Amino acid sequence: MWMSLATRGRGAAVAVTAGGATWCGLPAGLRGCAQRVPAIGIKDELAPGSGTRVKRSVRQIILNCKTELADLQKNEPRFHPGLAILQITDNDILEVKKMAAEVGLHVVHICLPEETATGELLDEIMKLNDDPKIRGLVLPHNLIMSDAAINAVLPEKDVDGITDVNLGRLVRGNFNECFVPPAASAIIELLEQADLCAFGKKVLIVGENGSREAALQKLLQMKGMVVVNCQWQNTNIMELCHQSDVLVVTSPAPEGLGEDWLKADTTIIAYNLPAAGFTSSSNHQDFQQDEPGSSHDGIGLLTAAMQIKNTVESSNRWLKQQQHKKWNLRPLKLQPISPVPSDIEISRAQTPKPIDVLAKEIGLLQSEIEAYGWNKAKVKLSPLDRLKEQPDGKYVLVAGITPTPLGEGKSTVTMGLVQALVAHLGTNAFACVRQPSQGPTFGVKGGAAGGGYAQVIPMEEFNLHLTGDIHAITAANNLLAAAIDARILHEGSQSNQALYNRLVPTINGKRNFSSIQLARLTRLGIQKKDPRQLAPEEVSKFVRLDIDPSTITWQRVLDTNDRFLRKITIGQSNTEKGFARECQFDIAVASEIMAILALTNGLADMKTRLGRIVVANDRKGQPVTAEDLGVTGALAVLMKDALKPTLMQTLEGTPVFVHAGPFANIAHGSSSILADKLALKLVGKEGFVVTEAGFGADIGMEKFFNIKCRTSDLKPNVVVLVATIRALKMHGGGPNVTAGKPLSKEYTEENLKLVTDGCCNLQKQIEIAQLFGIPVVVAVNVFKTDTEAEINLACQIAKCSGAYDAVPCNHWSIGGRGSLQLAEAVRQAADQKSSFNYLYDLKMPIVEKIRTIAQKVYGAKDIELSPQAQSKVDLYISQGFGELPICMAKTHLSLSHQPECKGVPTGFVLPIRDVRASIGAGFIYPLVGTMSTMPGLPTRSCFYDIDIDSDTEQISGLF
Amino acid sequence: MWMSLATRGRGAAVAVTAGGATWCGLPAGLRGCAQRVPAIGIKDELAPGSGTRVKRSVRQIILNCKTELADLQKNEPRFHPGLAILQITDNDILEVKKMAAEVGLHVVHICLPEETATGELLDEIMKLNDDPKIRGLVLPHNLIMSDAAINAVLPEKDVDGITDVNLGRLVRGNFNECFVPPAASAIIELLEQADLCAFGKKVLIVGENGSREAALQKLLQMKGMVVVNCQWQNTNIMELCHQSDVLVVTSPAPEGLGEDWLKADTTIIAYNLPAAGFTSSSNHQDFQQDEPGSSHDGIGLLTAAMQIKNTVESSNRWLKQQQHKKWNLRPLKLQPISPVPSDIEISRAQTPKPIDVLAKEIGLLQSEIEAYGWNKAKVKLSPLDRLKEQPDGKYVLVAGITPTPLGEGKSTVTMGLVQALVAHLGTNAFACVRQPSQGPTFGVKGGAAGGGYAQVIPMEEFNLHLTGDIHAITAANNLLAAAIDARILHEGSQSNQALYNRLVPTINGKRNFSSIQLARLTRLGIQKKDPRQLAPEEVSKFVRLDIDPSTITWQRVLDTNDRFLRKITIGQSNTEKGFARECQFDIAVASEIMAILALTNGLADMKTRLGRIVVANDRKGQPVTAEDLGVTGALAVLMKDALKPTLMQTLEGTPVFVHAGPFANIAHGSSSILADKLALKLVGKEGFVVTEAGFGADIGMEKFFNIKCRTSDLKPNVVVLVATIRALKMHGGGPNVTAGKPLSKEYTEENLKLVTDGCCNLQKQIEIAQLFGIPVVVAVNVFKTDTEAEINLACQIAKCSGAYDAVPCNHWSIGGRGSLQLAEAVRQAADQKSSFNYLYDLKMPIVEKIRTIAQKVYGAKDIELSPQAQSKVDLYISQGFGELPICMAKTHLSLSHQPECKGVPTGFVLPIRDVRASIGAGFIYPLVGTMSTMPGLPTRSCFYDIDIDSDTEQISGLF
Repeated sequence: MWMSLATRGRGAAVAVTAGGATWCGLPAGLRGCAQRVPAIGIKDELAPGSGTRVKRSVRQIILNCKTELADLQKNEPRFHPGLAILQITDNDILEVKKMAAEVGLHVVHICLPEETATGELLDEIMKLNDDPKIRGLVLPHNLIMSDAAINAVLPEKDVDGITDVNLGRLVRGNFNECFVPPAASAIIELLEQADLCAFGKKVLIVGENGSREAALQKLLQMKGMVVVNCQWQNTNIMELCHQSDVLVVTSPAPEGLGEDWLKADTTIIAYNLPAAGFTSSSNHQDFQQDEPGSSHDGIGLLTAAMQIKNTVESSNRWLKQQQHKKWNLRPLKLQPISPVPSDIEISRAQTPKPIDVLAKEIGLLQSEIEAYGWNKAKVKLSPLDRLKEQPDGKYVLVAGITPTPLGEGKSTVTMGLVQALVAHLGTNAFACVRQPSQGPTFGVKGGAAGGGYAQVIPMEEFNLHLTGDIHAITAANNLLAAAIDARILHEGSQSNQALYNRLVPTINGKRNFSSIQLARLTRLGIQKKDPRQLAPEEVSKFVRLDIDPSTITWQRVLDTNDRFLRKITIGQSNTEKGFARECQFDIAVASEIMAILALTNGLADMKTRLGRIVVANDRKGQPVTAEDLGVTGALAVLMKDALKPTLMQTLEGTPVFVHAGPFANIAHGSSSILADKLALKLVGKEGFVVTEAGFGADIGMEKFFNIKCRTSDLKPNVVVLVATIRALKMHGGGPNVTAGKPLSKEYTEENLKLVTDGCCNLQKQIEIAQLFGIPVVVAVNVFKTDTEAEINLACQIAKCSGAYDAVPCNHWSIGGRGSLQLAEAVRQAADQKSSFNYLYDLKMPIVEKIRTIAQKVYGAKDIELSPQAQSKVDLYISQGFGELPICMAKTHLSLSHQPECKGVPTGFVLPIRDVRASIGAGFIYPLVGTMSTMPGLPTRSCFYDIDIDSDTEQISGLF
Repeated sequence: MWMSLATRGRGAAVAVTAGGATWCGLPAGLRGCAQRVPAIGIKDELAPGSGTRVKRSVRQIILNCKTELADLQKNEPRFHPGLAILQITDNDILEVKKMAAEVGLHVVHICLPEETATGELLDEIMKLNDDPKIRGLVLPHNLIMSDAAINAVLPEKDVDGITDVNLGRLVRGNFNECFVPPAASAIIELLEQADLCAFGKKVLIVGENGSREAALQKLLQMKGMVVVNCQWQNTNIMELCHQSDVLVVTSPAPEGLGEDWLKADTTIIAYNLPAAGFTSSSNHQDFQQDEPGSSHDGIGLLTAAMQIKNTVESSNRWLKQQQHKKWNLRPLKLQPISPVPSDIEISRAQTPKPIDVLAKEIGLLQSEIEAYGWNKAKVKLSPLDRLKEQPDGKYVLVAGITPTPLGEGKSTVTMGLVQALVAHLGTNAFACVRQPSQGPTFGVKGGAAGGGYAQVIPMEEFNLHLTGDIHAITAANNLLAAAIDARILHEGSQSNQALYNRLVPTINGKRNFSSIQLARLTRLGIQKKDPRQLAPEEVSKFVRLDIDPSTITWQRVLDTNDRFLRKITIGQSNTEKGFARECQFDIAVASEIMAILALTNGLADMKTRLGRIVVANDRKGQPVTAEDLGVTGALAVLMKDALKPTLMQTLEGTPVFVHAGPFANIAHGSSSILADKLALKLVGKEGFVVTEAGFGADIGMEKFFNIKCRTSDLKPNVVVLVATIRALKMHGGGPNVTAGKPLSKEYTEENLKLVTDGCCNLQKQIEIAQLFGIPVVVAVNVFKTDTEAEINLACQIAKCSGAYDAVPCNHWSIGGRGSLQLAEAVRQAADQKSSFNYLYDLKMPIVEKIRTIAQKVYGAKDIELSPQAQSKVDLYISQGFGELPICMAKTHLSLSHQPECKGVPTGFVLPIRDVRASIGAGFIYPLVGTMSTMPGLPTRSCFYDIDIDSDTEQISGLF
């Protein structure tokens, strides 16, 4: 008995679809041959019950796939992978759909019109490539596919195994990454069922010499079989046929195939040839007779099942790739030289990884990043959703003791720690840092990206423009400012009716409120939707915000150190009709919009916060908001890209998020919640996210816990408290430390007494961290003038003062290798039990909250509010803002309000000069002393050293 | 006689290098087998003189390569391609180097230390991938290569043919893009020499079953040969050997190969097996004996030659890719609907191509672009150098007749024209347009990116932030402004010595001038380099710019419509010690730095221009420049990325450069020279670059020719003059047209009289273009209310008035298809002879230049300078700025200075109220009337409609 395994049915196209899903992209000749095909079937061995056996095999494959997919979904219940089938004409894919449905795969069946151009096909492929739910993509079979279209399919979705990359992988034997073409799998399955896949068996593949034959040949050869692939024209064809144990026919014999060509026991597999043209003979049995009504023969079904199997395998690979795992990250090698060169020289000497490479290494998908040049990329917020089920990593805060005016190196510790964790200990770790203001880069401070061998690179890109977030904040801030003054002018110079006619104009005979205006009407309690129906008093309510200019708190900003803008008079042109008023420009990072960016949880939340920004009071003392001005949407539009954190890298090629940089003077001074959340997902359970709090721990850390963590609901695991011998000596009574002046010899020579005495500040800051229930690791940031005795002493005292551990670190001079001890200590501390708690309850009265911070954190005896401060407190309570957290605006140079009081001042009364509010960001900020919000340019600004080489484009002078 | 073709020599590693450059990446097993190899050689057929024959063949290949490369270099004399050979140990590549030298290829030989990690190897590969001079890259052979390393090699440089993509291409038969592994080519060459590459010949490849065998098998099968690839373990091995005509041995037979296994005439090729282990027999002849002293045997030399051949082929492909050719660009399909939806809806309905795809389509290399997200990319200036030898395309300027206040659609014509040229006529064409100011987007104007079905997409990205150029200009402009005021303050409040001590501080005991300060000393004629040697009067000269605050012309800028900043008083804070003064903010695009960006030719030129910006005079009347303030380098650093044009696309997927947008009111109002130059190279000789001039032709076009073209030295080929029936009717005496008010019925109903009368303006503008010797094509931008008779009439009159052609266009409603007539007309006009000339000579006195423009272009009787204007002219002449071109600041709403004078006013005297100078940009600008440089927000600003959906992130309300 012979049994045909050739496909059959309704013409060539169907046959191809049903049986040979793999073979698209072949020369047309193979397809058009339906009418002149000789009868070919499978003899003896496969015959008895082979139809049933194939069916059984198909069933088994489908059941296995079902089980495998169900297992995958146990851990990822939201995972519903799909197989996309692109077709040019609407062919029957009923069987595939049935199988997919049984397995649990979703099928996306896209039928394109016959005249579809390659371009449109490419568009469809691109869309499906980009869709993370689609895990398999099958191209049309009844179209000659261009190389471009075939290779447009992402190799990881190429379940038909047709792309160049897939074939290359298969030929090179990389079966972990390639897909075996389903038809080849089907043939092998048939041969295995018949015990024909045996070492030394001879297979003749006759017909074409294309890619499918090459794949099959390779696979059979791997099983030790002797495989010849030739064409019918071969002069030895009879001899070759006669020698074969198996004959695979992939194109019809031009002159037919005589049975005498074959050995008695030769098995013939006719692949992909429609039955229509078969010549019949008595010992043939048609498969269709065996299975009446089926439009699919055995090999077709088997091929379809293999396609399903590949799609499930693809889903499996995808999920594995999604899962938390140790990053396969290639650190950049450091070759530190001594003495340590300038930051820009170190940065320039290192070639950063292309940012898309780093993104891939840390598990981001290509579609989740937006490159900005080769070294920066914005990361979308979508991974927060994709990795929702994945547990967060450990959350580490780097804070400092009360610093000298020179700074004690929190940023370098942050960089050194992640460089050690990732590049030297192979742990997943992310640094999340603030974007520096561009103004000071040209003023007095120079660049800020860590320093020495622990920094973010390229440092010039970090310090300039970055991905434009601060520029976006400037634009949004100033649009709001312009809207306030323009509104006052327009209200002040027009009647209610004139205002109303302009605000709600008649366009093409129609008069409508915009949706932003409708929202305002709702807030005003006016339910009318038709502009013609408003009563005069309603028009008045609608058109007049009635802002009291003396109460305006919203200032313009620039990212430039421009001291002449600290106090200005605006509106002096005649066109502003006498509405001149005094105001000021702040540095851009002092904008409340920056604080909002740092504290927001996403686009919807950001819009809410932007809308509730209070810019002034009206003449009745009620707050006027950005929403009242109708500008919320525009602000959000300007901020939409700024919402995405920027990915960069450390000097050792480990990932860094740079996002938001609220001014620590008047805001909370920490980088963004969104970056931290993304990073915590990307590092996974065993990983670490290291972030910083500005200033000393008494201000930065307190705000981090009480404001940032309260808003994000994230719980920190470890505090790293940075100390330097220099700062300790200062607290121990050393001479003044002033920027720009040489250090006294107390700081460059060993002085154990000063260190011992100064440790009181360190001890106090440790105690502050412990107030919040978090273990503390003290990191002594070593300078080259520090002696071993000094360092040991400081560590010793720190440990006695309650620190979980205290270690020196040398990242600045040698990179991550210099912070290995710190990394180990942090890893161990993170395993400690911690019991994080806030310092105060939000329901406490504002003044009590301030007092709590002053007494428990700063060590003050009490607080004292000025009359102005008290009246502002009363105002905010009356306006309903009493339950916001407190963001203290205090000097960072002392635990007290007096910068000259070092060590641990006690017994002081903390004066509260004024109280202000950032309602959009969500905090009340009491002012302890005067806070400058606009730095200036000194006589000798940094820009005297900054230059760019016209030929090499190398930048110099950023230090 | 037998002849061994196996490689031999100094151990396995050398043998591999010499003979089998292709086979790296193989299992180590194959390499370690040197010691147990049986004797294998080539019998009879290849034997007699085969060594000589191979040598001859190698010579021939090398000579052919030499000729081919020389031919390539004839057209590209600067092209010196290289072959990079990476090695782990320093092996002998003398022969390859010799061959390469003879051919004219440069060899880069990189030896890495033995312990090289994959990461470092990857770094090297990446660097070589990025180097355009390297056209071939060969990996180390004596290292087990990771898949990552193998596939890191760019397929277009993979001259060893080892990557997955290359193998896939080879197996799929794409020989135009793949490289045949050199060793496989060598074997085939040997067989062909012996006439063994014949249909039906039987080849047994025995040994491994790896990628090299697959490649060889595929190639031989393509020649109709019967090829079996099996392993030595195969049970039928004896039989298989006996049947073969050719035996290719790629791994040693474990138990040796008996000669009785073979037919008498079997040819054996032992590939890649060192001779060391050969057993000798009487009828063997060692190749080395034949060629004493050679370290390379025949097959090794042949393989090396094939490697060279592939590298030359790679160079050839690369050059072809570089050459100007018709872009293989996939247009995006348009499905225009009627009535035409809003611009943002049309933009949103189209899916743009990924910008890197577009960049590739127009011939940019990957390394030449810096993506900013998926839809924008900055393009480096390096293609200007790469394509230096290539002739420019045709240069088309779109200008307009005197417009109504509503604008007549120059941008839509620009977009429609390139959409027609590229998407419908298959011509290379680029649009170069200005970046819009972000301020008006939220004020009165809304978005600006063309409109309807002829626009730049995505329009929201075009209108917001873009790639940050305007933000960079704002930052640079305001740093300079802050530096001016800070300098006045510091000079005004410190003694010479105090200033000197601060400007040249002692750091670590050393006192040095920075290079910027040294440059200032040189300008002052002070040759001393040691700060301690300056005499007091030299110190005074050095430290004091002595700026006269009343002469400061440098203003601060913001990209916000903020009318309250039109006139302000700054410096009112106590910290500024009484140095308050009146000044203003301008809109950012009015900054001279924007004009510089538009007019510069590159980084060095930009630095020069930035440095010579005059910001004020000193108290002696001498100009004070940015260079004097020491801020040139910092400004250039802030502007370094802004220097690169931004690539976007039209609605039909054709390329657009967006770069610079100087304020047409007070600057020249055209997009950048750099973008035009890049585009002219990218479109190539037969292509078109279409750019715009702001305002009407009398201002925009005149400035374009006399300022922009003079600076760039580019010669335009065609002017497209845009007219609308609406504007013609206005010039013919129609009622006023006012923004925001409904149009009178004269404009919505047919009125041939008004059209006829209004054509005087069109005629005058045609004549203006002809003044410059350029053919004019009039484009009547059709509105839906225009009648056919009106359109025909306008075209008729235009043609009679000297236009080369005049056609209607409908791009707004149906896209490029609607501008086909225009595109054809422009193509024909570009073939006309033109004789471009400037209107005036730069050496003419300033007043004469102004008079020439007023009389010849505007049709004025004469000009009249105010006393202030005259004194400024005198000042600029005395300061040496008399030979700059003139940039008129005149209303665009009339040919005269009076906006209400429509048609062609005559007999008027043009009043010159004031004259100012942009010395950095390089022009003098006379003010005819008052020019506002800071727009305001109207009562109902655009922002009332602008919003973003929190879920979909879709923006609405930008129209």
